[in-house]
Amino acid sequence: MKDLAITETNQAIAAQFIQTLINAWSAQNKAVTNFFQKYEDAAYQNEVSPGRNRAIYLLGHLISSNDGILPLLGISERLYPELNEKFSLNPDRAFTDLPTLAKLKQYWETVTQNLTEAFTNIQPHEWLEKHTAVSREDFLLNPNRNKLNILISRTTHQSYHLGQLAFLVKKD
Amino acid sequence: MKDLAITETNQAIAAQFIQTLINAWSAQNKAVTNFFQKYEDAAYQNEVSPGRNRAIYLLGHLISSNDGILPLLGISERLYPELNEKFSLNPDRAFTDLPTLAKLKQYWETVTQNLTEAFTNIQPHEWLEKHTAVSREDFLLNPNRNKLNILISRTTHQSYHLGQLAFLVKKD
Repeated sequence: MKDLAITETNQAIAAQFIQTLINAWSAQNKAVTNFFQKYEDAAYQNEVSPGRNRAIYLLGHLISSNDGILPLLGISERLYPELNEKFSLNPDRAFTDLPTLAKLKQYWETVTQNLTEAFTNIQPHEWLEKHTAVSREDFLLNPNRNKLNILISRTTHQSYHLGQLAFLVKKD
Repeated sequence: MKDLAITETNQAIAAQFIQTLINAWSAQNKAVTNFFQKYEDAAYQNEVSPGRNRAIYLLGHLISSNDGILPLLGISERLYPELNEKFSLNPDRAFTDLPTLAKLKQYWETVTQNLTEAFTNIQPHEWLEKHTAVSREDFLLNPNRNKLNILISRTTHQSYHLGQLAFLVKKD
């Protein structure tokens, strides 16, 4: 009985740990959603700071980055692979034919929905398995390159750019 | 035997979860340390973006915020309680007698050392206990207000301001 109690306790701990992390990811994600509902569309064409990325570029960048979680966790292919070239591999203003803000907001919601649903189906021990971009050999050398680390690093990545988006000044 | 194996597996999972999170906190912390070693001292007197906080203020703010983790986790009192007034409760330029950059860097290292040492001594199940700023009654209503959540939110807080610090332009 004692063993079973400890087992259940540790299972509960592992489950609560991962739920807390998923909540943190969702909170940062929701803050991005709220930010892009705050101003009129035109405001997001502004640079967040002189000579820096435009807010609309940062939204595309965050979509592309979050979309990349899907293949890394073995959930699915990227939903919008074309965004990688425009918003991750190249800087702002490298392309003139970017998707509209309305389209990007729609992509953001779809990627978020797919991730949120998939996250809840991953079991605690599976979060400690290797992500798909690391080989079995490299994973043995560095077991930190697991799925959990992807979730944490993409949580802080959202936070990093939220700090920058907060500097956006609305056009008069 | 099977129960024991599961127990050990779940203990290992919980331990690896918390270690991954501590690593994430340390990585963001180290990025702040590196940022403040990058330029000459005078550069950190600049605003990170026009009309926004100076880099030196953001360092004080991050020290004050991290220092606040010590009482929240029940480790100790704040090491530098006077920073709370200057860097958390009030905006930049509210005070003219701020500590020097050299002093702040020293405080930063000391707070980081104290936290890093304390983190490794907290057992996995203890991270799910309530932090000290929430009452037992409120904790029952929202068990998410635990020590783990403090660690995660202060990790993303470091990341948020790192994104802003990255905008600092060196004075010519």
